[in-house]
Amino acid sequence: MTVTAAAAPRPAPSDALDQTPYLVVDVAVAAAQYRRIARAFAGTRAYYAVKANPEPPLLRALVAAGAHFDVASTAEIDLCLAAGARPDQLSYGNTIKKAGDIAYAYARGVRFFAFDSLGEVDKLARYAPGATVLCRLLASSTGARWPLSRKFGCAPDLALDLLGYARSQQLDPAGVCFHVGSQQLDPDRWEPSIATAAELFRRAGDLPLRYLNVGGGFPVDYRVAARPIEDFAFAVHAAVDRHFGADRPEMMIEPGRYIAAPAGVLHTEVVLVARKSYADDHRWVYLDVGRFGGLAETEDEAIQYRLSTPHDGAPAAPVILAGPTCDSVDILYQHTRYSLPLALQSGDVIQIHGAGAYTATYSSVGFNGIPPLRTVCVPSGGSGAMSNADVRK
Amino acid sequence: MTVTAAAAPRPAPSDALDQTPYLVVDVAVAAAQYRRIARAFAGTRAYYAVKANPEPPLLRALVAAGAHFDVASTAEIDLCLAAGARPDQLSYGNTIKKAGDIAYAYARGVRFFAFDSLGEVDKLARYAPGATVLCRLLASSTGARWPLSRKFGCAPDLALDLLGYARSQQLDPAGVCFHVGSQQLDPDRWEPSIATAAELFRRAGDLPLRYLNVGGGFPVDYRVAARPIEDFAFAVHAAVDRHFGADRPEMMIEPGRYIAAPAGVLHTEVVLVARKSYADDHRWVYLDVGRFGGLAETEDEAIQYRLSTPHDGAPAAPVILAGPTCDSVDILYQHTRYSLPLALQSGDVIQIHGAGAYTATYSSVGFNGIPPLRTVCVPSGGSGAMSNADVRK
Repeated sequence: MTVTAAAAPRPAPSDALDQTPYLVVDVAVAAAQYRRIARAFAGTRAYYAVKANPEPPLLRALVAAGAHFDVASTAEIDLCLAAGARPDQLSYGNTIKKAGDIAYAYARGVRFFAFDSLGEVDKLARYAPGATVLCRLLASSTGARWPLSRKFGCAPDLALDLLGYARSQQLDPAGVCFHVGSQQLDPDRWEPSIATAAELFRRAGDLPLRYLNVGGGFPVDYRVAARPIEDFAFAVHAAVDRHFGADRPEMMIEPGRYIAAPAGVLHTEVVLVARKSYADDHRWVYLDVGRFGGLAETEDEAIQYRLSTPHDGAPAAPVILAGPTCDSVDILYQHTRYSLPLALQSGDVIQIHGAGAYTATYSSVGFNGIPPLRTVCVPSGGSGAMSNADVRK
Repeated sequence: MTVTAAAAPRPAPSDALDQTPYLVVDVAVAAAQYRRIARAFAGTRAYYAVKANPEPPLLRALVAAGAHFDVASTAEIDLCLAAGARPDQLSYGNTIKKAGDIAYAYARGVRFFAFDSLGEVDKLARYAPGATVLCRLLASSTGARWPLSRKFGCAPDLALDLLGYARSQQLDPAGVCFHVGSQQLDPDRWEPSIATAAELFRRAGDLPLRYLNVGGGFPVDYRVAARPIEDFAFAVHAAVDRHFGADRPEMMIEPGRYIAAPAGVLHTEVVLVARKSYADDHRWVYLDVGRFGGLAETEDEAIQYRLSTPHDGAPAAPVILAGPTCDSVDILYQHTRYSLPLALQSGDVIQIHGAGAYTATYSSVGFNGIPPLRTVCVPSGGSGAMSNADVRK
């Protein structure tokens, strides 16, 4: 039995950055991602899906870059307005809204909403009178690493009736939206929904349909590289040309992951490397962040992050990766093959790349007494000066 | 097409209790549950698993009732000590601890720890010298609604070596622990691990093994009633008698869910009732709490809560239940048949029963901009006076 050295002691909890875990978000990377997707989708309005990462410095950088914003709640509206966005740059894209939240959004000047049901039209008519509304269509998520199921969207026949009903309620039924699933790897998955939308536009009679929001889902590089964004823009534009022809609608996209994910690196410490029996050749590697600390998208091992360690290049062997809580579903990867250096030990810091989207806000408020993941925004280049004001818990 | 009335408006976000969602925890119910399990397991020390619900009023009530505490982190140690527990009433049961966290626990007077690997023994020897340590054994979770996989525990042969190694490092290797999975419905599932432990005790030579911690997992009534706790106590005691005979160890249990779950009722509002197509006879019912707002244990529909609505008794039909976020995995029940009244509409408040354990602390810090679930502790009977001091966010 080999006796390994114990890890160095750790100071008591504090806000210091020598304490993992924390997420470093490079705002300049996010702004560059925005500019790239906006250029690829020229002529299309890009609404940043704030839920991906709502850090104020990031939002301010995107306001400066000219972004629009897709919001899911009143809190996200407030964050965008505080970051300098105008209300007419916001789209309230969540189809599940409390009446009071619609009223709040309307009072703050938001006039652009999504819906996919009769009840939501009624609420919008009453609490956001005259607003511009898009109906969300059901879409297939085939090919997406993080599929969006039947939870959102309605069937086309119903959508057409609901748009007509919206007009009867003095709303402005202005088009349709859909979402083909997040981290969608296949550029051709947008076309079936675009075809459905075009058919619906043709059947819409005198309804003033003019917006086509093709949603988000544009993929980023995790362990496996995704195709370049230009391929997706080309496929979407070609499909719109094919199905809408000369009656091209005003186009919208809602990138979230594409903008925020590459901007983030999550720093986590190895808490323990363990073997559980003499017969098992896998090591268990426990990190100080797990599914309840921000890595929620490792559920079912869907999102497979790229990791780097201080021992990269040294001999490696298979591991099972898990989080620090007493919950056994807090396992990151046990079916997906991950191989890490044999030299890895307690106290080593691992970097989780591409972790800027759908991480910090998912983290639990205090499961097992573990505080939420902290985010540190840096203005550029990943190592620049940080002010304490940008360190948020 | 039927036009339903829109729901009443909701005030802007505030701390008021007319704002769902919130969890009401009846501290007296938790204390009664503690007394019942302590009586059923007479002669056994009961360590409340703080992770189930760490609300200070609940911890104070359990201190007053004489409970011991199983903690998973330094924050939980601080909460227990602040609630009046003595350090010698605490067991640091998480087998994945940072070196600094062990040192912190030791400095606060904690002398009782669990481990299941060589690396953890090294850390304990260095940062908690002389501490009393139990080795966690792998156990089968068959029969549990929330199984605990291979993530925790080691094989018996390795456990015996690690206990011997702990002694060589001047620790006090005092016994073993295991856990058969949470919401374990089968009282007979403890016996295989008790038999393994007894065999290990017999092979331990002159190691001073004396504690047998049979963990938690004791089930509560959700939609389906569980067997009474006395059945589990009887089965455990009988198995210990059978395998340990006259050399009966000092017994420990770690109930968490059993104590906290029945004490909590989660109040949630219906945000929307929707049909997604003319062909689907299911309604989608969207609540203002979901998997990321506290109902994490509905993952894979594992925990099936009992619901009550203002329309109970009226005609009902099948529904799919989902949470309010834009994440499609935020669905509570779609494969499990839930039937709710046809009269249900936006604005109705649904009560989710048995929600006192593993809910509030799991809730995300702000996914989709939605704040974490609030907890309100009431001293008795579910409707008694509450002070603002007991309303926590």
